Amino acid sequence: MASFLVNGLDARSIDADDRGLMYGDGVFRTLAVRSGRALNWVRHYRLLARDCGMIGLPCPEEAVLIAEMSRISPGDATVKIVVTRGTSGRGYAHEEGTVPTRVVAAYPAFAGDAGAIDGVRVRRCELVLAEQPLLAGVKSLNRLENVLARAEWRDPAIREGLLADAGGRLVEGTMSNVFLTVGDRLVTPAISRCGVSGAQRERILDIARAEGMACEVRDVDFGELAAAGEVFLTNSLIGVWPVIAFGDRHWLPGPVARRMQQRIAEEDARGG
Amino acid sequence: MASFLVNGLDARSIDADDRGLMYGDGVFRTLAVRSGRALNWVRHYRLLARDCGMIGLPCPEEAVLIAEMSRISPGDATVKIVVTRGTSGRGYAHEEGTVPTRVVAAYPAFAGDAGAIDGVRVRRCELVLAEQPLLAGVKSLNRLENVLARAEWRDPAIREGLLADAGGRLVEGTMSNVFLTVGDRLVTPAISRCGVSGAQRERILDIARAEGMACEVRDVDFGELAAAGEVFLTNSLIGVWPVIAFGDRHWLPGPVARRMQQRIAEEDARGG
Repeated sequence: MASFLVNGLDARSIDADDRGLMYGDGVFRTLAVRSGRALNWVRHYRLLARDCGMIGLPCPEEAVLIAEMSRISPGDATVKIVVTRGTSGRGYAHEEGTVPTRVVAAYPAFAGDAGAIDGVRVRRCELVLAEQPLLAGVKSLNRLENVLARAEWRDPAIREGLLADAGGRLVEGTMSNVFLTVGDRLVTPAISRCGVSGAQRERILDIARAEGMACEVRDVDFGELAAAGEVFLTNSLIGVWPVIAFGDRHWLPGPVARRMQQRIAEEDARGG
Repeated sequence: MASFLVNGLDARSIDADDRGLMYGDGVFRTLAVRSGRALNWVRHYRLLARDCGMIGLPCPEEAVLIAEMSRISPGDATVKIVVTRGTSGRGYAHEEGTVPTRVVAAYPAFAGDAGAIDGVRVRRCELVLAEQPLLAGVKSLNRLENVLARAEWRDPAIREGLLADAGGRLVEGTMSNVFLTVGDRLVTPAISRCGVSGAQRERILDIARAEGMACEVRDVDFGELAAAGEVFLTNSLIGVWPVIAFGDRHWLPGPVARRMQQRIAEEDARGG
């Protein structure tokens, strides 16, 4: 079971008229909390604030969110922060000064699983992501594409589905970002037309650059996947999942994925 | 103020964990109720059921919705029906048998205004609609594009913004469908890549065809707008709004718009 704070109050519910429900008029972030402390918080908050700005929403103050996270989850948890435009009556137009709704929800912590150790099998989704540059990167509440893409398969041996845009470019997984190694470079798709920029993706890029690894954030053809030296998936709960199978192509978990797992663990232990 | 029934119960709130909030995982319809009776109901229910089917959601039974609408609005009202996938825990995957959430909300009736009589001025929005054929026509809860498009202008003299797709084709208004007359034909954009199919749009096409008017549902170049004999907007609350100005182009409310207003009024009086 989850517990919720809605605008700072213990509550299990939100106004049925909230624009978050009615229009998906809001943004969210999902993160890991350990011993009451949000991991990778600096990047999470920066992305949350950026996303709020992209849709013209005031972002909650950082201190408020930190206090609410530690209140709702003094131990370990998966925490979801949702910010909506609040209630402002029927119709797409919203008045100046509408008060946002802030939800901080704590779910059971993701304990980790064999995916990080043994690697995972992935598939390509049939759904093609729509291209909306105004929302590219934003983790908005408009996630019906992800829901439909995730409903394409039920085989539990397939842990993730990869998504392409209309140009056949690789964008992301349904719940993760994707990295490839090409020679000695680290490559991840640019999130400029569609897709979500995860805080873990930002961290991987920061770590790799700090280590002097050449990083390329650019269009990635789906065909490059099969030719990649390593492929791995990232999000704030799974950390890094090495990809070991995509169609006929098989890999062993590679050294870059293993090093990134190590660096993330170190940064989390240090309180990065 | 609005009143709400959530799964048939008098309630002002929904579960904060509802997938309608978290992912926009649901659909809705907005309609006019007069003396407790939903206008244009047959088309509204058909579209609601189709939309539910498009995202794999069980549609509430028609009799349940009719009973709840008349319970919540014995008189005149604007009613919104929302169906979400309900709560099924965190993550995009949803289990078989998740129980949908059904919201029936009654807002003050739209009294009508000068728009239908005098016509309205419209603008072209800068936002370009993303193309997702799997959701084209569906009135899903993913409406952030409409929110952003409607936020582009504040001039109250402009009543609606027209939206194009990436190919520069006219699709719809932020809250309405669009019709043009070209010679003696009635033309409306095909809703095959993006956009919402309104129940009023379906009704206008049915009426025009029954009258023997040639109707074309097809791609419409934005350039055709300025050359059109008449342009009008439709939705279930405004009925038909003749467009009298778009950029430099001006029109007087035309005979087709007037005839459609008349036919709709007749059908509503008859209980169509």
